[in-house]
Amino acid sequence: MPVTKQYLFTPGPAPVPPEVLLEMARPVIHHRTPEFSATLDSARDRMKPLFGTTRGEVILLASSGTGGMEAAIINLLQAGEEAIFVNGGKFGERWGKLLGTFGMQGHETKVEWGRAVRPEQIDDALKSNPKARAVLVQASETSTCAVHPIAAIGEVTKRRGVMLIVDGITSVGVFEQKMDEWGVDAFVTGSQKALMLPPGLGLVALSERALDAAKQNRTPRFYFDLLKELKAQRDEHTTAWTAAVSLVFGLNKSLELIHDETLPRVYARHQVMAEATREAAKALGLRLLAPDNPAPGVTGILVPEGVDGGKLVRFMRDALGVAVQGGQDQMKGKLVRIGHMGHLSPFDMLIAVGAFELALTQNGAKVPTGAGVAAVQARLARSI
Amino acid sequence: MPVTKQYLFTPGPAPVPPEVLLEMARPVIHHRTPEFSATLDSARDRMKPLFGTTRGEVILLASSGTGGMEAAIINLLQAGEEAIFVNGGKFGERWGKLLGTFGMQGHETKVEWGRAVRPEQIDDALKSNPKARAVLVQASETSTCAVHPIAAIGEVTKRRGVMLIVDGITSVGVFEQKMDEWGVDAFVTGSQKALMLPPGLGLVALSERALDAAKQNRTPRFYFDLLKELKAQRDEHTTAWTAAVSLVFGLNKSLELIHDETLPRVYARHQVMAEATREAAKALGLRLLAPDNPAPGVTGILVPEGVDGGKLVRFMRDALGVAVQGGQDQMKGKLVRIGHMGHLSPFDMLIAVGAFELALTQNGAKVPTGAGVAAVQARLARSI
Repeated sequence: MPVTKQYLFTPGPAPVPPEVLLEMARPVIHHRTPEFSATLDSARDRMKPLFGTTRGEVILLASSGTGGMEAAIINLLQAGEEAIFVNGGKFGERWGKLLGTFGMQGHETKVEWGRAVRPEQIDDALKSNPKARAVLVQASETSTCAVHPIAAIGEVTKRRGVMLIVDGITSVGVFEQKMDEWGVDAFVTGSQKALMLPPGLGLVALSERALDAAKQNRTPRFYFDLLKELKAQRDEHTTAWTAAVSLVFGLNKSLELIHDETLPRVYARHQVMAEATREAAKALGLRLLAPDNPAPGVTGILVPEGVDGGKLVRFMRDALGVAVQGGQDQMKGKLVRIGHMGHLSPFDMLIAVGAFELALTQNGAKVPTGAGVAAVQARLARSI
Repeated sequence: MPVTKQYLFTPGPAPVPPEVLLEMARPVIHHRTPEFSATLDSARDRMKPLFGTTRGEVILLASSGTGGMEAAIINLLQAGEEAIFVNGGKFGERWGKLLGTFGMQGHETKVEWGRAVRPEQIDDALKSNPKARAVLVQASETSTCAVHPIAAIGEVTKRRGVMLIVDGITSVGVFEQKMDEWGVDAFVTGSQKALMLPPGLGLVALSERALDAAKQNRTPRFYFDLLKELKAQRDEHTTAWTAAVSLVFGLNKSLELIHDETLPRVYARHQVMAEATREAAKALGLRLLAPDNPAPGVTGILVPEGVDGGKLVRFMRDALGVAVQGGQDQMKGKLVRIGHMGHLSPFDMLIAVGAFELALTQNGAKVPTGAGVAAVQARLARSI
């Protein structure tokens, strides 16, 4: 196939709008100026509705999302303290690794890949580990394309009086988050997904309780000292360390685009793209890894028996110019993940699914050519 | 004055060439692809001559330069261990704060602001503190615009068999660095100075001895685990955590420009700009904060008695569109720092000095109008 144009459907990095790319291509300015301060203030403010908070504080970091996860842990927990973490995929596992690295005792609540944790499991874990100070979980587990029920988990953590730390890297800006209502204490996200930016910014929103915990906390921290950052960002309208200036300008621009579109429409767009992709999988006779609790930002489709998922993903990229992602760790070779976050239209799912169909056939799967794109089209027709 | 065009002469962020801004405005790609791998490999390779190493390993981080400083410390030193740090300014002081934060015992070698540390001081400090495992110092102390003699310090650390950890944030790419020859074990820099990029990338080059130290090191670290990063970057041609993809593309481009210009010419350009600025200060009857050991990347000029340096800097920015930086901490209001790193030509010093002259007069200083720019011009004439 004579392909030159490239498409990005990975679950991060996700496509960035040209307006944002151009905004970031503006001449760089110093980060201790009124112009930068105004941009930082605006970006922090515009982030709040995406987290679903009016009372929380948003802090920007020059780091990837993993830096944000580390920051949440080392500011809220101390060596020797206990926490429950939900391990239902690669990023849940990362909570456990982070806790272990910094000397906290992590109690794992294991969840089969693709499943959602049940709130009762959290309750049981907290009952069995009464010293646990926090529950750590993904709102959307990118490796399995599954969502966890944060609202219901929040009910449990509220009742038991423990902190709730949530990785929202593929949920914030993708579907509605209610930090204040759910009682989330630290909510982490990154720039390269629904925020429609290149990677390089981590964001953490903190509740009042989280700020209190950080004040008491003695874990050694410097670059990721969130109290120092908050003081700089809230009180001095700049950053403690040199800001990733271009990304902050880009963030403010992408948030302008998001609020112009309006959040309900942004969320509806993700929902349509997700449903169209799921229905395409069904029409092709394929199963989802997370059929009962699929993520709105990324869809994980199990490849048919006998097809090498890794080869299929490489074929899509190299021969068709369409970047999607395979499975990680135990799902390597068995899963294709199609992202639908960032600067994408529902129509783009025709391309993602079209390329997927062609790649399946080329890699020895027997699928009815056209059934996938027809299913996408049918879903789009219902949202007109 | 009818000013609209803006000029950036801060000692970081420094101006970014349009070619690099446009390179970074390219559509984002995934960080686990052959294209990204080739770019990362090339950028890491192209960095080596700037550090002056053929044997060292270059590691990129999604962080500011401070993140790089933290990474060097927590990978090479452990709680309870001792180190000598040179405090001759705000960034030397930061070494001390970092050591203290992570439980190391830092022995301060205090140097008056603007002065260079003498190698004998390092030798004495190591004699008095025989348990010290490392010496930490700035190659160029951005807050005082002074350089420290790294080659001579390296002689001392070699003789005494301790590690040498150097902050090269305003030296790498500005003037010649000889990591291997000097025996530097960890050499830190950031993207937003001579590398002609926006902030957001930290870079650390490590010697073989540093890698050995990191392998033995038990300091808790995750985001800034340099061994994990090196394994990813050297062996797997990608990053451990999501890379700041656009900045890595920008870095590879700016290094192409730097090597096209050739390093000797880049260094000569910085030298001419620095000397022109110093001679302008002299012609205006002003003194430098670091007259004996001035930095090639940024010149610190003491403002005359009775002039408020902070007001002067704001006037330059707001009324003249020319961004320079004032003094920090004890030099607040007393110092003007004119940066000459990044995408700048010697001719640009006519503008920096011209604006500085006008601002001096407007703020009550009696300086001979035109004497500064004439001195710049005279220096340029000598380099034709």
